[in-house]
Amino acid sequence: MTTNEKIAALRQAARAAGGHGVLLMTSDPHSSEYLPDHYNALTWFSGFTGENATLVVTPAGSALWVDGRFYVQGDKQMAGTEIECMHAGAAGVPTVEEYLTAQFTAGQTLLLDGSCAPAATVEKYRAALEKSGAALADRDIVSPLWADVRPALPNTPCELLTPAQTGATVAEKLAAVRAELRKAGATALAVPQLDCLAWLLDLRARDLPCTPLAVAFAFLTLDACTLFIAPGRLREADAAALAESGVALRGYDEFLPFLRSYDKPETVLLEKSTANYALYTAVEENPAFTVRLGSDPITALKGVKNETELANIRECHIRDGVAMVRFEMDLEKALAEGRPLRESDIEGMLQARRREQPGYFDDSFAAIAAWGPNAAMMHYHAEPGADAAIEPHGFLLVDNGGQYDCGTTDITRTYPVGPLTGDERRYYTWVLQSHIDMARAVFLDYCTGFALDTFARGPLWAHKINYRCGTGHGVGFISSVHEGPQSLRPNNAVVFKPGMTITDEPGVYETDLVGIRIENELECVDAGENQYGRWLRFEPLTLVPIDTAPVLVDELSGPQLAWLNAYHRHVYETLAPRLTEDEKAWLAQKTAPLTR
Amino acid sequence: MTTNEKIAALRQAARAAGGHGVLLMTSDPHSSEYLPDHYNALTWFSGFTGENATLVVTPAGSALWVDGRFYVQGDKQMAGTEIECMHAGAAGVPTVEEYLTAQFTAGQTLLLDGSCAPAATVEKYRAALEKSGAALADRDIVSPLWADVRPALPNTPCELLTPAQTGATVAEKLAAVRAELRKAGATALAVPQLDCLAWLLDLRARDLPCTPLAVAFAFLTLDACTLFIAPGRLREADAAALAESGVALRGYDEFLPFLRSYDKPETVLLEKSTANYALYTAVEENPAFTVRLGSDPITALKGVKNETELANIRECHIRDGVAMVRFEMDLEKALAEGRPLRESDIEGMLQARRREQPGYFDDSFAAIAAWGPNAAMMHYHAEPGADAAIEPHGFLLVDNGGQYDCGTTDITRTYPVGPLTGDERRYYTWVLQSHIDMARAVFLDYCTGFALDTFARGPLWAHKINYRCGTGHGVGFISSVHEGPQSLRPNNAVVFKPGMTITDEPGVYETDLVGIRIENELECVDAGENQYGRWLRFEPLTLVPIDTAPVLVDELSGPQLAWLNAYHRHVYETLAPRLTEDEKAWLAQKTAPLTR
Repeated sequence: MTTNEKIAALRQAARAAGGHGVLLMTSDPHSSEYLPDHYNALTWFSGFTGENATLVVTPAGSALWVDGRFYVQGDKQMAGTEIECMHAGAAGVPTVEEYLTAQFTAGQTLLLDGSCAPAATVEKYRAALEKSGAALADRDIVSPLWADVRPALPNTPCELLTPAQTGATVAEKLAAVRAELRKAGATALAVPQLDCLAWLLDLRARDLPCTPLAVAFAFLTLDACTLFIAPGRLREADAAALAESGVALRGYDEFLPFLRSYDKPETVLLEKSTANYALYTAVEENPAFTVRLGSDPITALKGVKNETELANIRECHIRDGVAMVRFEMDLEKALAEGRPLRESDIEGMLQARRREQPGYFDDSFAAIAAWGPNAAMMHYHAEPGADAAIEPHGFLLVDNGGQYDCGTTDITRTYPVGPLTGDERRYYTWVLQSHIDMARAVFLDYCTGFALDTFARGPLWAHKINYRCGTGHGVGFISSVHEGPQSLRPNNAVVFKPGMTITDEPGVYETDLVGIRIENELECVDAGENQYGRWLRFEPLTLVPIDTAPVLVDELSGPQLAWLNAYHRHVYETLAPRLTEDEKAWLAQKTAPLTR
Repeated sequence: MTTNEKIAALRQAARAAGGHGVLLMTSDPHSSEYLPDHYNALTWFSGFTGENATLVVTPAGSALWVDGRFYVQGDKQMAGTEIECMHAGAAGVPTVEEYLTAQFTAGQTLLLDGSCAPAATVEKYRAALEKSGAALADRDIVSPLWADVRPALPNTPCELLTPAQTGATVAEKLAAVRAELRKAGATALAVPQLDCLAWLLDLRARDLPCTPLAVAFAFLTLDACTLFIAPGRLREADAAALAESGVALRGYDEFLPFLRSYDKPETVLLEKSTANYALYTAVEENPAFTVRLGSDPITALKGVKNETELANIRECHIRDGVAMVRFEMDLEKALAEGRPLRESDIEGMLQARRREQPGYFDDSFAAIAAWGPNAAMMHYHAEPGADAAIEPHGFLLVDNGGQYDCGTTDITRTYPVGPLTGDERRYYTWVLQSHIDMARAVFLDYCTGFALDTFARGPLWAHKINYRCGTGHGVGFISSVHEGPQSLRPNNAVVFKPGMTITDEPGVYETDLVGIRIENELECVDAGENQYGRWLRFEPLTLVPIDTAPVLVDELSGPQLAWLNAYHRHVYETLAPRLTEDEKAWLAQKTAPLTR
């Protein structure tokens, strides 16, 4: 079936169900960022493979909204289909809500599957439709249409992390969450998000691509906790350990019936942006429950890593640094020998070197290897057969990361693979300045992500260049590579605290020309107190040389140059004990101080 | 009477009125920043002369809260009295609310004059007292105690600005405010703030020190507007002009009775932070009124200057720049000749030069001239007889500004008056870097004052130095030298727009050692649109050389040095046509490019 045929089928199924259109989102019952394939109907129907989109099919047309990371990719993948690619956030482009208001008329009904959409989103779309007298109905017309090819729900082996990994027992975490519930005036918490649940119960599996989580729900009260997971997935010893921590087990499918039939009065803390609409409705319609809207306290708790986690994360970055150094040597050798390399070769080269490291078990996301203009697509993924050859000029951008038994990594380097243009060198230098200005920032402990974000953007803004994404995101611990609540981006109001980790990944993306990104993970650390207050700063966690060949050294300020040289000294000193003599010699050269 | 005797009298009067304590604030019925002396009871009773403080007298003690600008001054002025000086915001120092909760016990009552306190503040204090079972009563026990010495209400000549000055008629402004009221779902607006009222009705007088405003209220509905001002203060022609614009006149004292007896249904927009408690109560208790809490729309409207105002403001800064150049030459000459100068001499020297300029009629605030360690007190005012001699070493900080018929200015320069220490040169250079990084910022049009504030603080934060105040504030047009809603400071959420003016005044304040501040006014201007969005930047309004003698030029980055040299070229080229040959030669030297 072609994309247009699939859209026609959606349209027809909506009509058969008494509706006039259908909305699909890249979303699952757990508001996951990376979906189990079981839930990726949007990709199957539209052909769009990016991680975030919304598809609306109306009687007369269809449109797909993609965010700034995916403008170029969305345009390419929708070309030749009836679907209009909408650049969400760009000037003159209607929002999904504006489109719904305009396209649906009085008496019409839009259908969507409420179990796979956050309650807040459903409410927003309903309000937009009601402006035109149209309605929204929670109905899943999509599942039957792709039942034959739809992947099953994942069912991978589950395990529990140990306190040596996490630095805290499940009992301690339950107590911490209960204390937060009391502060919020709540007595219960529904946990739909898999990364929150994983942190709370030390539970890991391999249900999601690149994200070692298990598909499950939890429901926590001040004196009980129930994990809802498919029967038989936990080893007996793990189930017993959880039981000892006060965690009971029920089947995954029992979650909504459990909520609907719960009969003890509870004040349930719910986050409308992450609770799916079916969950939210089940709580709201149960008279035993009072809904208390607020932030899931687990998000804030797990965002600040404890000392054990931090020690593990630091070790993880040493291992990842060694693998990256070896990969970079492999790449350099291949290029020097003139071996024909394609973008899709890079992922395997990275995996080969990570596999040599103890504790590595997966990538933390599908590696991005993008040569030349392809790198202007921020989240490009090279598909074998449809990818570019790495030609001996310009840049190769490589964004990748690993999952280890001691942490999760995320790193981007942009390598010159031959002669560079003046613009390429300027852009590279400015991105490096942005990266460094974020990394070397010293700041008071009242700073939010929005306030800090301007440190990174300043050097690029000076040239009227911006990147259409955040400067950085939190990183989970043996978990999702993207994690909140902190982030470096406009309007983020979370105040930074020691123990938070964050990526620092400014970039330049000039469509059809060039893409450059330099990314380290940083740890927010205490920098002492004086008469002015409590100071914080960042320490780099990532330990991989930043290519200095493209740098226009005269553009760097003294402090920027000093940071770069100190970073490289630190990389060398930390990695050298784990490297061979050859590798050490190579790294010494790569980390040699840059001078004017 | 000594301060302690005055506090004892307050305590006794409170007891006589059935209360147990009294609270005084530097506040008037209009939430003015600079009070008519008529309202400055706090200074008379406590001896504290700063612009912002709260005094609490309890049966057992008394305490005065001052903000970061006044820590040093407060400590000095409260020394030897029973009043404890509280550094508001410093670690371990209780807030006024915490103090009230702790000091007052069940059944006790705190008295305050609700006509001179914002409603939001009264509610906050009441809630704090209620935590301990104590109460708050709106009663003025203070007025009788100082009636003999209390200054009368001001009654200075009123005038109306012309459209050539303001660029908009009163009728146009009334229409703009009414449009905002409709957007906010309101039908009426009480205008307690004198600067808002001055903007709305083009009304100016000299009622407040350094601030050309008239003490009055206004009440605006969708079809009527009434100005409440003491009878006879307006010239007949002005009253007629206002009547023609649809503005009726009533006596100042009729304002509260008018609100209490108003009998047409209105939804009144009120801002609890600026409406005094008596006003708020009058509206809330009148059944004809519905209170709609929200921001006074005039604040946002007047914060963005129109083209006529901007042209006048630019002219104003040329005149002010000429006056400042001549003052600086006078100062330099006096120092070179070894004339004994005291801090208190500076204000007169400045005024003598400003008086030569057309349209100058007042200072915009009491000039700060602070030598050496005195400059560590951010808002120090040298009192003749109690001021320092300007010794021939270290810095002299001069913060001052003028009121002209074409605008209001605010400028700070810090002059080396002899040999400097290494620290003094370093601090000066870092402050200059902070100033420049704010002034040269290029940013997207979503940036708030909090996001931009970090641009200025970055260079000082790098050395773990901060200033305990905002980086900058808006400046009124022939009005208050401090005006919102925009400001450069933590937590300010106002988005910058072209036409806003702002000061850029970072500083270093090391108690008992040194104070350095470099302040220009900046205009926010459009910097064009490209694929990334709408860009904004700042252009300096202030046209006065920045002393380069103390600068450690190697600390400046290339772009910082380029900004400084371009600014100085601009200062010279703009001022030169109004200067004599001698003055031009002096200025050419002062604005000569700095090189490494």
